[in-house]
Amino acid sequence: MRSITLLGATGSVGTSTLDLLRQDRSAWRVEALTANSSVIELAALAREFDARIAVVADESCLPALRDALSGTSIEAAAGPRALNEAAARPVDITVAAIVGCAGLGPVMAAIEQGGTIALANKEALVSAGEVMTAAVAKHGATLLPVDSEHNAIFQCLAGNAIEDVRWITLTASGGPLRGFSVAELARVTPAQAVAHPNWSMGAKISVDSATMMNKGLEFIEAHHLFPVGLDRIRIVVHPQSVIHSMVEYRDGSTLAQLGPSDMKVPIASCLAWPRRMDTPCDPLDLVAHGELTFFAPDEQRFPATRLAREAAHAGGAAPAVLNAANEIAVAAFLDGQIPFTRIAVSVEEILNETAIAQAPTSLNEVQALDGEARARTSALLESA
Amino acid sequence: MRSITLLGATGSVGTSTLDLLRQDRSAWRVEALTANSSVIELAALAREFDARIAVVADESCLPALRDALSGTSIEAAAGPRALNEAAARPVDITVAAIVGCAGLGPVMAAIEQGGTIALANKEALVSAGEVMTAAVAKHGATLLPVDSEHNAIFQCLAGNAIEDVRWITLTASGGPLRGFSVAELARVTPAQAVAHPNWSMGAKISVDSATMMNKGLEFIEAHHLFPVGLDRIRIVVHPQSVIHSMVEYRDGSTLAQLGPSDMKVPIASCLAWPRRMDTPCDPLDLVAHGELTFFAPDEQRFPATRLAREAAHAGGAAPAVLNAANEIAVAAFLDGQIPFTRIAVSVEEILNETAIAQAPTSLNEVQALDGEARARTSALLESA
Repeated sequence: MRSITLLGATGSVGTSTLDLLRQDRSAWRVEALTANSSVIELAALAREFDARIAVVADESCLPALRDALSGTSIEAAAGPRALNEAAARPVDITVAAIVGCAGLGPVMAAIEQGGTIALANKEALVSAGEVMTAAVAKHGATLLPVDSEHNAIFQCLAGNAIEDVRWITLTASGGPLRGFSVAELARVTPAQAVAHPNWSMGAKISVDSATMMNKGLEFIEAHHLFPVGLDRIRIVVHPQSVIHSMVEYRDGSTLAQLGPSDMKVPIASCLAWPRRMDTPCDPLDLVAHGELTFFAPDEQRFPATRLAREAAHAGGAAPAVLNAANEIAVAAFLDGQIPFTRIAVSVEEILNETAIAQAPTSLNEVQALDGEARARTSALLESA
Repeated sequence: MRSITLLGATGSVGTSTLDLLRQDRSAWRVEALTANSSVIELAALAREFDARIAVVADESCLPALRDALSGTSIEAAAGPRALNEAAARPVDITVAAIVGCAGLGPVMAAIEQGGTIALANKEALVSAGEVMTAAVAKHGATLLPVDSEHNAIFQCLAGNAIEDVRWITLTASGGPLRGFSVAELARVTPAQAVAHPNWSMGAKISVDSATMMNKGLEFIEAHHLFPVGLDRIRIVVHPQSVIHSMVEYRDGSTLAQLGPSDMKVPIASCLAWPRRMDTPCDPLDLVAHGELTFFAPDEQRFPATRLAREAAHAGGAAPAVLNAANEIAVAAFLDGQIPFTRIAVSVEEILNETAIAQAPTSLNEVQALDGEARARTSALLESA
């Protein structure tokens, strides 16, 4: 029996994780489940999985959580400090699936216990990359990437030495607008942008996929997770999303991980690591797929990957600023305030006016940078 | 510095192996080099690599070998017993690249030393599978498969447990006759059959690729190397030969190994295992490839994979008989004695008239079975 804490239990990754635990409840003891504000759902899950503690990030929800857990011995708590404390409880594996910078604190708390963390929080590595990888090294923690691309790379590295890697190739679907001209891109509606061909995801990440900023952020993540050097990480457009990413070694062997577009696969690979567990996913049928195709990214139409690469090369505050500016610009696009093509333009403007600062060395510095970049981006977009 | 013995130094795998050693001569000490009868070439290689011993299989070549090595301290020897003795000398790695049943004795001698053997001899596993895997287990030897498909599977299994495998998928190019109708196949000439689209190989293995018997033999090999059960090994036609084979795990993750159609890649992966070494091969460029395609095998037109699967299921003497009958039938086709489609028909006839015997338990039994099946096939083809 293994113990598990799930940070972000009611989101997409959290739900998939719990589905996997349901396959064999007797194999797992659930320590902590957390949510942002979905108290009723959180309480129901805490009861179902007999969690030791349920934590809600929004402090105003605590009375409702207590109510919903009455008659059980499940502890109820709320607020950022309670989240961090819950994340710090020793467990065999922590699934870190809180979206956005709100997840940084709990992830760091789990890392500081030296545990095994299945990391689904993109922002954590993009904005706080050095802070996080330094903490992982210091505390002897193990990071297992949940993102399908990074999980694929992690799998392709098994049994190999990172020094022998010649290339890491991130595959990108190219998103729903892959064939659009610049003129067509300028007229794209939010509904068009969120219609991802292969993955069912939230609106923000779907827009990131349409701009290819998602791949840019993954590029930065990959750079922190797999220290092969920025010049050895590249992006290939692969519209079918069957190959999730690849690693080429110095002997000319390339290992690729393939699978369905279902987050249960990478989550299961983290939960069972270094072994494997069953998932309800269909076996791969390449004959049914018929063909897999590959294209070079077009950074004229989709400049986001170039911006991310430049931010990674610049280092310092740039990746955190890129991420923050992008979040604000995507929200403005989804609200109908700016056209689709303005997202990347705004991010580039904000990056260009950012003084190259030192890389943040603490979570507080990351959060300050993040807040400042958001404010600047909002001001820029309102003034336009 | 690592020590190496190369059984079959003058063949295709031997030549590629020596090219790789030339990249860093100071890293290797060559113990034994062997050849069938190419004395001049063998002696030149033994001089170049300062081998301790050079062995020629054909005993009548010994005087010529001694002549060619005069003035050196390199030992010269000849004959099957000398081959076995050379193979039994302790080394860090043995590359077993003698073609055909002649290679069985030396491979077994190397296995009995409990060493690490990079195995390029297909017949060894097809004809003597149980004999060989039992010896590997008994003597604690390590088998590294050189064949590109099995090497790919071996790489895809790194860091994983064989119990977690759901499928092993061997890829097949489909050979040069993939699009031919049954009527066209009946008229195929030897020149057409040996024109392989992706790999440059000898005539016999090229014909095996055209009939798809090569993939059938690899199916039997895979079954011995990777004990997942015959029903978990399948074949997919992939004309570009970029993906060399795949392993799917129970969580839905598939790992694939991709690379150029150059034997230097799998050989290098064995020589450097568990690390990697440089090869002169170009990096993989999937954008240049553009697309990878996949088809189900057509066992109506190409029955050889069915015959091999049936032989593997039947067990006992069947795989050795299949292999022997195929060799004779391919030779008869190359000699213009029988039409292309008769190859598989002859193999099936010989298999059907074979009493299901016990699996051979010694090398002598394997060789007796092999000889008997060859004689029967020759008689069948002459009587036709």
